[in-house]
Amino acid sequence: MISNSHFPVQFGTVAIVGVGLIGGSLGMALKARRLADRVIGVGRSQERLNAALALGAIDLGLTDLSEGLAEADVIVLCTTVGHIIGTLPETLTQVKSGAVVTDVGSTKGAIMAAAHGNARFVGGHPMAGSEQTGVEAATPYLFEEATWAITPSAATDPDALHIVEMLAREVGATTLTLSPGAHDAMLAVTSHLPHVLASALMRQAAAVQGIYAETDQLSAGSFADATRVAASSPELWRDVCLSNRDALLAAFSGFRAELAVLEAAVAAGDASAIEAFFAAGAQAKRGWGKF
Amino acid sequence: MISNSHFPVQFGTVAIVGVGLIGGSLGMALKARRLADRVIGVGRSQERLNAALALGAIDLGLTDLSEGLAEADVIVLCTTVGHIIGTLPETLTQVKSGAVVTDVGSTKGAIMAAAHGNARFVGGHPMAGSEQTGVEAATPYLFEEATWAITPSAATDPDALHIVEMLAREVGATTLTLSPGAHDAMLAVTSHLPHVLASALMRQAAAVQGIYAETDQLSAGSFADATRVAASSPELWRDVCLSNRDALLAAFSGFRAELAVLEAAVAAGDASAIEAFFAAGAQAKRGWGKF
Repeated sequence: MISNSHFPVQFGTVAIVGVGLIGGSLGMALKARRLADRVIGVGRSQERLNAALALGAIDLGLTDLSEGLAEADVIVLCTTVGHIIGTLPETLTQVKSGAVVTDVGSTKGAIMAAAHGNARFVGGHPMAGSEQTGVEAATPYLFEEATWAITPSAATDPDALHIVEMLAREVGATTLTLSPGAHDAMLAVTSHLPHVLASALMRQAAAVQGIYAETDQLSAGSFADATRVAASSPELWRDVCLSNRDALLAAFSGFRAELAVLEAAVAAGDASAIEAFFAAGAQAKRGWGKF
Repeated sequence: MISNSHFPVQFGTVAIVGVGLIGGSLGMALKARRLADRVIGVGRSQERLNAALALGAIDLGLTDLSEGLAEADVIVLCTTVGHIIGTLPETLTQVKSGAVVTDVGSTKGAIMAAAHGNARFVGGHPMAGSEQTGVEAATPYLFEEATWAITPSAATDPDALHIVEMLAREVGATTLTLSPGAHDAMLAVTSHLPHVLASALMRQAAAVQGIYAETDQLSAGSFADATRVAASSPELWRDVCLSNRDALLAAFSGFRAELAVLEAAVAAGDASAIEAFFAAGAQAKRGWGKF
């Protein structure tokens, strides 16, 4: 079902398990670019599948996972990290021979471990999305200019890796293929820690609001930016923390060390050390390759 | 020179000391709304004053502070917190009798202390601006929908307070009059700490980039938001830290306590404690009055 010609790229029947923001956007992108013969959405709620159908994100909605998997050439798991880890072993036994399975989970080491070296599984993580959830926020343009990390294992078929890389590129993303461990170490600092910081600051500000009722009126752009992702799904971030424990604990340690640099300088009233702290941050920000 | 009639409000001759983003925007707003007979910009660089003149932010640019102060009915100090603290005592001796002096510094306790209970000085802090600096980024709309904190002392003339409140409201802001100490305690959490977190995260990410060269490619929206203000002026934030030392150290302590809640839950693999941490942050974010 999958053509080797450069254009059009055909992924045959694609099953998207979990049709929320990411899954719905993927379905829309595949359909808008005519990259799949058929996009099957698989989910537990018929009502949410109907919403995805109405928005044109999928061609068919099924609540029976095994039925959805049976016909698919490419299966993309778009549920939470915890759900992916819990269901992956059984999912891999239900797909048809030759099918390729990938996922969009935010951590990769624990998911790759749950695949037990299956040659047709390739981990994936599109760096797209927002604090919004649900297919209502989906857009076929979500992956444009995004990086889509892809994490094969030593056991992954080169053919399966190639198909997942093509899928990511054809919906507009730039692919970056790397090891699950490197992915998780970097994401701990570039994504997981920022979410933790946003929630921690929001919790602290709410406590201060209990003392000074004008606190929210005295918050502006820097606070809004710093806490934007505090509105994200608690379940999603619970799973991320549980599945990337060691890298996240290392990231906490590194962050505390940075804070301690400034805290010591402020406590000592050391003007040049304080300025140097912010100057290094500003220089790093200006030199950052993306965002 | 200052009319008591409700409309039009006339502030006579307004001197803006330091014509950057805030000072330039204030000049533009005063001129666009015809709120001043004349807007004098005072600064050290004739070249920057010329830029402000060319942009229509001021009517006249002077490099001589005493000349600029001599004729002004209202003086707004828009330089850095450190500069305001250092020059305020002398500035207050140079203004004409009956003139009102205010400022836009991000911390208020140390600035109020430098005013030594002068009855014509009223502290101010428009909660507007961005990581941008310079009059080139100025806009007459900067203060619209912004909160402008105003911090009189026990010695402040009610008349002087009223003029500064009117000035803030006439350029579009909502005023919030409160004590310098309450202002500084709240801002430590809603503004100063977010800037510190942004710089600390940016410094940490730069260190990780030295280990994993793809780190910047694996950063997305949450990282961009979390580090946006890391590009801010190191000198400005040095002054903020030095002048709000105690409140900032208390904010560090509160933040570390929040982080420790999650760190302990992650280390223990306590799923429900991790979820509760994020759920409380999400609830606080949804309930936040502004931004």
